[in-house]
Amino acid sequence: MERTIGDAIAAIVPADEWAREAARAHQLRLTKPAGALGRLEELAVWAAGIARTPAPSFERKTIVVAAADHGVAVDGVSAYPQDVTAEMVANFLAGGAAVNVLARHAGADVRVVDAGVARDIDDPRIVRAKVRYGTDSIATGWAMQRDEAEALVARGVSFARELREDGVDVIGLGDMGIGNTTSAAAITSAITGAPPRVTTGRGTGVDDEAYTRKLDAVERALSVNEPDASDPLDVLAKAGGCEIAFLAGLAIGAASAGMPVILDGYPTTAAALIAAALAADAAAYMLASHLSAEPGHRVALAHLGLRPLLDLEMRLGEGTGAALAFSLLDAALRIPREMATFDSAGVSGPTSEIPPEV
Amino acid sequence: MERTIGDAIAAIVPADEWAREAARAHQLRLTKPAGALGRLEELAVWAAGIARTPAPSFERKTIVVAAADHGVAVDGVSAYPQDVTAEMVANFLAGGAAVNVLARHAGADVRVVDAGVARDIDDPRIVRAKVRYGTDSIATGWAMQRDEAEALVARGVSFARELREDGVDVIGLGDMGIGNTTSAAAITSAITGAPPRVTTGRGTGVDDEAYTRKLDAVERALSVNEPDASDPLDVLAKAGGCEIAFLAGLAIGAASAGMPVILDGYPTTAAALIAAALAADAAAYMLASHLSAEPGHRVALAHLGLRPLLDLEMRLGEGTGAALAFSLLDAALRIPREMATFDSAGVSGPTSEIPPEV
Repeated sequence: MERTIGDAIAAIVPADEWAREAARAHQLRLTKPAGALGRLEELAVWAAGIARTPAPSFERKTIVVAAADHGVAVDGVSAYPQDVTAEMVANFLAGGAAVNVLARHAGADVRVVDAGVARDIDDPRIVRAKVRYGTDSIATGWAMQRDEAEALVARGVSFARELREDGVDVIGLGDMGIGNTTSAAAITSAITGAPPRVTTGRGTGVDDEAYTRKLDAVERALSVNEPDASDPLDVLAKAGGCEIAFLAGLAIGAASAGMPVILDGYPTTAAALIAAALAADAAAYMLASHLSAEPGHRVALAHLGLRPLLDLEMRLGEGTGAALAFSLLDAALRIPREMATFDSAGVSGPTSEIPPEV
Repeated sequence: MERTIGDAIAAIVPADEWAREAARAHQLRLTKPAGALGRLEELAVWAAGIARTPAPSFERKTIVVAAADHGVAVDGVSAYPQDVTAEMVANFLAGGAAVNVLARHAGADVRVVDAGVARDIDDPRIVRAKVRYGTDSIATGWAMQRDEAEALVARGVSFARELREDGVDVIGLGDMGIGNTTSAAAITSAITGAPPRVTTGRGTGVDDEAYTRKLDAVERALSVNEPDASDPLDVLAKAGGCEIAFLAGLAIGAASAGMPVILDGYPTTAAALIAAALAADAAAYMLASHLSAEPGHRVALAHLGLRPLLDLEMRLGEGTGAALAFSLLDAALRIPREMATFDSAGVSGPTSEIPPEV
């Protein structure tokens, strides 16, 4: 395997159990019943393990929106024309897309990556990671060559390390690519074994006829290409897409640099499936921001052992769910840093021992 | 009925359908598939109807934490001694409780109300609404006199109007009162008809023995007092508690002043049940921030026709869930104000008509 990727995988360490234990113990001293903040407490313990300190904060937040085109889009699997990928890239760069608004709200930066848009993007603010102009249709053959998939993963790894050098503390994954829930479905079926009718949804909102074409495309991607679940780069090369390959690398790079990785919807979670298949320890660095309305998302998250924080019936992608989760994560991390303890506030504890799980 | 309350009820107007329709139409012009932001879009439409303008913002946010004691606490229905109510009031005023941290995170103020704490609170920052030093045990008789319940509701109404005068745009309800999930359960059973074993949970985390005492207290509150579901003030007087009465008034006052009311956990939702029983139109102004781990909360929310935004297994109260929802509401309201439209961004629309519900 490419050296950048192999080195990153080898550099991923398990969460710090001492920091997790210290975080857990501190939660019990705060002026609230044990466990009463539910998943906010779990989040704080999880973050402590990754940051290797009992009460961390993640100040510099960045959402990386990777964009690419999908050959399968010409088969009519999406409600939108392929041009929308490039048009939305321009929208991201201009700050007008949903992810820009929600990132501003969370105090996060947005970085936009051309991971394989079908057109050239002439804007100095774009991050260039393109190795080809979109994928070939996965319904008739491979999405891309194996060495192209590998190069995209390596570029994702490198970009995560660059962000860390620049002082970024936490990364949110975002995606843009007309047709990319078709690739996400093919990857999820390939990795988890779930049948396409379970992993294929309506994406941007296709009608029954287009849904039938989409389901057919996913089924053919599997039967024609026979992706090998034990070889994640094979799955990527056969099922696509370019942005998913880049994001898989980004997740591995982030984990190798000790940064939490906030997943978004279905395509980013497909990237996480690839990342975790390449580097099992990477999953410990992932947080599932939300449950998408795409039905296969639940299957992919379950395979990763992740429980989504939010369920707001969103199905936009771009990193919009990740942006919302940034704010919840910040809230969870302020609790141990700012709350009074029973001792410091002079508040009485429970009258008798509280059962450990109530 | 007390004039303050009657006037407020009469002043509540239904949501503005024109503003809702304009908000809905604007969502369709934004650069995203129709409905792809799920409940964020619903929130924006809801807020437009209440604020009577298509793209509102709620800048000044306040969480009102009403505190009071419960006679039933001496029956051992809680894991904590009654003193904790007053101790936590001091903690709120010092800024060290969970709600203070989460309110700061959301950019919200916290106002602390003595609605009936068993001790005197000598702090100039407390809002004084007390008419009695806590309730009598609801397991043996009425919580308070009917005129006391009415006075507390009226004080809640007046405080909402004061906050509006001060420029507050949105109110979150918060509660503190050792024993108050016992009252919440009695109110929920009285209003919805659900049996006490469905409405009674473990509150701050009681063991099996204390749970049996708590369930017994709720059952006796209903059988001894026979609260009349068609008379909300009768329910309040018999089931308590003082902070719930105040919060019911606060919700009515806020709705009468056109302000959204963000509910928190079980006691605040019991207050909402009373408010909606007194003023049916008040429910349109309510937003359910989260689903508490208290099982009866689901019953109370269903009766109000409200769906919670978050489910983070929290069971702390204080307004902690409301504080988290403030941030989601802000995010939802920034979308229509800040996102580009298909026209302004030059993004192509769908290739064919999208089915209305996908």
